[in-house]
Amino acid sequence: MDFSIIRCARAILHVTDLAASRKFYVDALGFIETESDSEHIYLRGLEEHTHHSLVLKKSSEPNVEVLGYKVSSDDDLKALSKMFEEKGYETKWMDKGEQHAVGRTLRVQDCSGLPLEFFAEIEPTERLLQRYDLYKGARMQRIDHFNCNVPDVEKAQKFYQDELGFACSEYTDTEDGDVWATWLHRKQTVHDQAFMNGIGPRLHHIGFWLPDPLALINACDVLASMGYGDNLERGPGRHGLSNAFFLYVRDPDGHRIELYNGDYLTSDPDFKPIRWDINDPMRQTFWGHEAPDSWFNEASSVLDVITGKKIEQKPAKLKQHKPTFVI
Amino acid sequence: MDFSIIRCARAILHVTDLAASRKFYVDALGFIETESDSEHIYLRGLEEHTHHSLVLKKSSEPNVEVLGYKVSSDDDLKALSKMFEEKGYETKWMDKGEQHAVGRTLRVQDCSGLPLEFFAEIEPTERLLQRYDLYKGARMQRIDHFNCNVPDVEKAQKFYQDELGFACSEYTDTEDGDVWATWLHRKQTVHDQAFMNGIGPRLHHIGFWLPDPLALINACDVLASMGYGDNLERGPGRHGLSNAFFLYVRDPDGHRIELYNGDYLTSDPDFKPIRWDINDPMRQTFWGHEAPDSWFNEASSVLDVITGKKIEQKPAKLKQHKPTFVI
Amino acid sequence: MDFSIIRCARAILHVTDLAASRKFYVDALGFIETESDSEHIYLRGLEEHTHHSLVLKKSSEPNVEVLGYKVSSDDDLKALSKMFEEKGYETKWMDKGEQHAVGRTLRVQDCSGLPLEFFAEIEPTERLLQRYDLYKGARMQRIDHFNCNVPDVEKAQKFYQDELGFACSEYTDTEDGDVWATWLHRKQTVHDQAFMNGIGPRLHHIGFWLPDPLALINACDVLASMGYGDNLERGPGRHGLSNAFFLYVRDPDGHRIELYNGDYLTSDPDFKPIRWDINDPMRQTFWGHEAPDSWFNEASSVLDVITGKKIEQKPAKLKQHKPTFVI
Amino acid sequence: MDFSIIRCARAILHVTDLAASRKFYVDALGFIETESDSEHIYLRGLEEHTHHSLVLKKSSEPNVEVLGYKVSSDDDLKALSKMFEEKGYETKWMDKGEQHAVGRTLRVQDCSGLPLEFFAEIEPTERLLQRYDLYKGARMQRIDHFNCNVPDVEKAQKFYQDELGFACSEYTDTEDGDVWATWLHRKQTVHDQAFMNGIGPRLHHIGFWLPDPLALINACDVLASMGYGDNLERGPGRHGLSNAFFLYVRDPDGHRIELYNGDYLTSDPDFKPIRWDINDPMRQTFWGHEAPDSWFNEASSVLDVITGKKIEQKPAKLKQHKPTFVI
Repeated sequence: MDFSIIRCARAILHVTDLAASRKFYVDALGFIETESDSEHIYLRGLEEHTHHSLVLKKSSEPNVEVLGYKVSSDDDLKALSKMFEEKGYETKWMDKGEQHAVGRTLRVQDCSGLPLEFFAEIEPTERLLQRYDLYKGARMQRIDHFNCNVPDVEKAQKFYQDELGFACSEYTDTEDGDVWATWLHRKQTVHDQAFMNGIGPRLHHIGFWLPDPLALINACDVLASMGYGDNLERGPGRHGLSNAFFLYVRDPDGHRIELYNGDYLTSDPDFKPIRWDINDPMRQTFWGHEAPDSWFNEASSVLDVITGKKIEQKPAKLKQHKPTFVI
Repeated sequence: MDFSIIRCARAILHVTDLAASRKFYVDALGFIETESDSEHIYLRGLEEHTHHSLVLKKSSEPNVEVLGYKVSSDDDLKALSKMFEEKGYETKWMDKGEQHAVGRTLRVQDCSGLPLEFFAEIEPTERLLQRYDLYKGARMQRIDHFNCNVPDVEKAQKFYQDELGFACSEYTDTEDGDVWATWLHRKQTVHDQAFMNGIGPRLHHIGFWLPDPLALINACDVLASMGYGDNLERGPGRHGLSNAFFLYVRDPDGHRIELYNGDYLTSDPDFKPIRWDINDPMRQTFWGHEAPDSWFNEASSVLDVITGKKIEQKPAKLKQHKPTFVI
Repeated sequence: MDFSIIRCARAILHVTDLAASRKFYVDALGFIETESDSEHIYLRGLEEHTHHSLVLKKSSEPNVEVLGYKVSSDDDLKALSKMFEEKGYETKWMDKGEQHAVGRTLRVQDCSGLPLEFFAEIEPTERLLQRYDLYKGARMQRIDHFNCNVPDVEKAQKFYQDELGFACSEYTDTEDGDVWATWLHRKQTVHDQAFMNGIGPRLHHIGFWLPDPLALINACDVLASMGYGDNLERGPGRHGLSNAFFLYVRDPDGHRIELYNGDYLTSDPDFKPIRWDINDPMRQTFWGHEAPDSWFNEASSVLDVITGKKIEQKPAKLKQHKPTFVI
Repeated sequence: MDFSIIRCARAILHVTDLAASRKFYVDALGFIETESDSEHIYLRGLEEHTHHSLVLKKSSEPNVEVLGYKVSSDDDLKALSKMFEEKGYETKWMDKGEQHAVGRTLRVQDCSGLPLEFFAEIEPTERLLQRYDLYKGARMQRIDHFNCNVPDVEKAQKFYQDELGFACSEYTDTEDGDVWATWLHRKQTVHDQAFMNGIGPRLHHIGFWLPDPLALINACDVLASMGYGDNLERGPGRHGLSNAFFLYVRDPDGHRIELYNGDYLTSDPDFKPIRWDINDPMRQTFWGHEAPDSWFNEASSVLDVITGKKIEQKPAKLKQHKPTFVI
């Protein structure tokens, strides 16, 4: 491979009401608002030294414009573009400056139809990690991962491993030996990108890292006291898979955000991916709790990087499992 | 009142398998086993300076033998006995030594049919609060409260307030102004005794205090890794009522134990009881989660202090509310 | 005893710069500012249902005007006044309204010269315990205790136990069997009032309760990032005595505040006070750390309740122990 | 560079009493004892999937035999050996099996005289991350970093950056612009290897990762209650540098172990190393506490990888700074 993807780096979410979103993301979740204009809010976590990791863009309906990955250099972009084009993918270039605070960017729809972008450059900004006096709400620290529903998980996994250089940390098998879900990483955490069998392509959630488990408990209390009780969709709980202590919340447009703490270091190339049986109830929730139906059924639509239109969704290849037994 | 009840002090639970119970209470929940014989296990929390706060007694079926309160002196027992007898209650005396490690005891069935006992004396024992090297599992600290289902909450509340000297910290009203549930205390915490409208008399749960919120998270992890995932019935979550951070677990016989942290000081006689509307969803779970049906429907049977037979249960006076809207 | 003292309830501290104090107490420590005028700031903790527990009063020099206790009723005030007067103490009455938000008040200099007041009535206010969105800084919950240096600890202990009805939870003995320090309580915590051998009468610190141990860690981070690093005088650490997880901070005038979490229930009259040997290094800090000299040598001066002048300080009766071995 | 160092992977410490060390490392710190014989104890953290990360080897005096790094493959070893030999370093090969559970190994004394080893292979073992029932004591999770005193920090930094491929996350400058200390990493955490100006070569401490901040508080409590109060040398506190929440403990032979939680992701090649002024008191302790003299003056001697003799120590190139102002 002639390129090196560093990590998941940002997402652009279309939202319908910037003021409502600001209250949720800034006041309740505790994101830092780096900058904003009448159409965008640029958000970053307390640990982040880059301009933003989440862009909220005003639109008439909630969608995912793009999921962004950081690469090492602009040369990586060229090599990525070459690989995609040789395989028949249509790519789109955006010059430096075309997107606020971000350098030259390559966009492409991946093998499942997910809208990806790659860039090497993003404006640096003051890291506020030690400005504890500015911490509030859920104390979001940094972007951690994307989790997407795709119709064919094995196909997606193969592409990300073979063509993009991701490694697998954990995965779920069906009784028939099919990969039902997979956790893939570039940076040395459990994942940058997870795929789960389902109607897709859709973004199931974006995960953000929190500093410690009590920050999640505190997040529940803060969200509830601000009137966001109904937005607490699932958790807090412990995932068997990834060992994460998690909380899922829904933003005012229904986009799902995971608050996440507690995975492990994945630096070693000889680490054997952990296999979970789809019928192991501890996989989805180590503590044995069921997830609500909405968590299984609902996810965010994604857009075409070329046309900007909503990507048509296809049914899942593998059968849906009952909520009790599904990730 | 010529007597002073100090606090809820112990319960005697009948269990069917002492070895299974020991594994659950000692290994998983972290109780200290003060002493045991072929028929009993005497347990205490890490903070407790008294011989035990929970007795597990081998029996052919799971029941609650008695809920015990500590009073200031043996004179209090006489005054209590006089009060009960004047009101037509049948009492039973047990001499010092008749019950292991406990002094002279007065037993009586209360106005709802709950088996109560009162004693002033219980053997002191070494407090292990600062033996952190012995802490394990859920790190149970001390007994906190009893919560019982009774058919007529207002009747029970009135008796405990007027005749036994309890104060009310919080309560739930129905639309018609009936008291649906009430939290009553003698010691300066939110409760020693709660009553909830329901088929009764039954013991819904015994609450034990934990040192901090993370101890509950850790309890979930330990219980799950020991195979007790199915015993985690509800939580962790925040009660609106009492502000407690809670976890409900079921023991191997189905008795329910609450792990509890985070209520508030109730020292002031001019503190106004907090009223909750039964239709306020934050009452039962501040974070808005629903409790499972089992939590609403299942509770432990209680025994007659005179005959030792199971007390007949009566239907609740007020209608049952749907799980979503009930405590 | 014909009166019942409930608990330590408030203090009035003279400070030299209200704006500097507000920044420290409200922004950094997270107190709620109930009300203020050009001469006073009235502060309460997040759990408190009373108007305030701390009054900062503008003055030319930092002193302690009074330490206030809440009693059950105005009749208790009369009984207290009778007791003090019979023993030759000069008392001072303040009518309801004379002090903002507080009812009729009895003031008196205690046996060590400490300025005390007693009142039954204080304006109720909205309790913000579940307004987690308003929590900030150190998240102060409620006033917990006063700790004072007095020249003769045994004399003070005897007066508080015999005449005021306090119980002793823990104490420190010298090699000669003299009481070097004592922890006394009315409410069911380890203390409302501690006395330590030293030049006095002086207020060593006021203790405030925090919701959990991580709140103390967070308090250190917040204070440091606001530039209050030098105000972090001692801790975080674990007291052997009381088992508290503690942090001592100095306010802009040098008044010392303890952030405190983790003591135990003291409801039982048969609880035996815990004796600590003054040469046991785990007494002062369970983890074995030394306290800085300032912690041993510095404390706040107190005023005369009648004249308003500074009370003359007398040397300690027992010898000072080296910092390493002293509470 | 033709090789890829993954991370710091293990250390071999010589200790004088295996039983005393086992009590400290296994019972108090909570390491898992993978295996042991009459001369060695092999320890790993709860997160680790490799046979061990710490070897305690019985010897007549406490020393550091070697600091081990994991590389990607045996080819990396050849490339490393070539690089070292071309620069005149004497290397030593150990065949697979020569060291228990470890593959082919290259040893070499680095530019400062520190004994290093490199290996690609180490026996896999069951990861106990989710066996929460086995967690105890300080709950050590995984090895995180080595911190060494060397006479010439700039020389060491240059070698590790230019020849071994480390990146710098943070560093400390003197008034004269000399690098006084530096934090270098291969894996995506703040460091695998830190160098501090001082008499050297010596190992100052080995850092191990803990799962959350409360685990450090708990570690203090457990260690103190087991009688290790005097082994708690410094902390808990917050490092300005690295943002870590730290605790330093000394083992029975005086080797220093850091319990560590809370640094940040260092995945991005465009992250600018953070510069700290040596006169900034928040650098060493964000909360402003001084470190004890022992922390500045004492460190472990290291051995020659060829002769096994103790390496002679040289004075620091830069002047020592007063404890108050030094890392």
